[in-house]
Amino acid sequence: MKLYDYQPAPSPRRVRIYLAEKDLAIPTEQVDLAKREQFESDFAKKNPSFTVPALELDDGTVISESMAICRYLEALYPDPPLFGTDARSQAIVEMWIRIVEFNGLAAVADMLRNSSEHFADRALTGAAGGIAQIPALVERGQATLSRCFERLDRRLEGREYIADAFSVADITALVVVDFARWVKQEPAPNLANLAAWHERVAARPSARA
Amino acid sequence: MKLYDYQPAPSPRRVRIYLAEKDLAIPTEQVDLAKREQFESDFAKKNPSFTVPALELDDGTVISESMAICRYLEALYPDPPLFGTDARSQAIVEMWIRIVEFNGLAAVADMLRNSSEHFADRALTGAAGGIAQIPALVERGQATLSRCFERLDRRLEGREYIADAFSVADITALVVVDFARWVKQEPAPNLANLAAWHERVAARPSARA
Repeated sequence: MKLYDYQPAPSPRRVRIYLAEKDLAIPTEQVDLAKREQFESDFAKKNPSFTVPALELDDGTVISESMAICRYLEALYPDPPLFGTDARSQAIVEMWIRIVEFNGLAAVADMLRNSSEHFADRALTGAAGGIAQIPALVERGQATLSRCFERLDRRLEGREYIADAFSVADITALVVVDFARWVKQEPAPNLANLAAWHERVAARPSARA
Repeated sequence: MKLYDYQPAPSPRRVRIYLAEKDLAIPTEQVDLAKREQFESDFAKKNPSFTVPALELDDGTVISESMAICRYLEALYPDPPLFGTDARSQAIVEMWIRIVEFNGLAAVADMLRNSSEHFADRALTGAAGGIAQIPALVERGQATLSRCFERLDRRLEGREYIADAFSVADITALVVVDFARWVKQEPAPNLANLAAWHERVAARPSARA
């Protein structure tokens, strides 16, 4: 298999951290989003979502969506488990992945996509053009992100990780906190649980991925 | 366990169709979103996302997020499989769930939440207030939804279902097509593959859920 990656972007970083936690190495090809290579014919034919990461299997199947890629790898390489170990813990991991994506990752993406000159006329991920920026989404994204950080801080009271053990929920939240710096946002200084958690997960070797 | 449901809403319908496909019956309590019961103390304490569906386990754990609920049930009741059967098919189901959520479900929700009087000042799911509507999201949502329908139509060329077998990806897309009627949208008449697929999945007994 082959992973299509773009080193600076947050979504492929989720997969890279996941791979590092599993101690897996996959042949990787960079798709330079800054040069809009995701819209060029070879890659665009493989992944009509025009997104990275994408995972090309040996039979030619291309899997887009970070979580679909990680779940594919989880089925093949279950140890250490990063999506939970039983029905309850799997559900809790999935719940928090989605809470953090919806209220964190999407909020930062909205802030960036609707303000940066680079994304003028393609304010949605995967859009080649024709999607005008909506400046009001910057303010809405900032408020949503702040609430997400507060909720994570409450969740992390007395907890080492978001779920019972380190999981893809932590990977997702780590990527969100770091991605938020792109739009000059960081957790409020009083969110001590979140700060301590961030220090813990950022110290893992996988966080350098 | 107990399922918190709201009969008219699209997200709990995903879980209800899933339950019908599994031939599972779970004690259910209605949370009347029209009366804003999701913000009242009993439920709000259980699910601080203020969303339905939510699944309360016998140990008191509350799982929010439709897909987290379905994955919990999938781990307990694997037959018939609705999230795929092996690494590849599981990844394809997850990929399409997310493509349809991001480009379909979220688009219709944006259109509704940013136009309906009922959602003035709470234009995001789970917001109790303070989130002003952004009318430009109605137009953006409409364009995104149209592209989603076109993409589904291409995917369904020569296919009975979105993935290799009937799955949660089909459930999600069915709910999106039906939910779109709330904002007076339907697939363009030339999307014959999507129309034939919709007729097929809407004819399943589970679609009445």
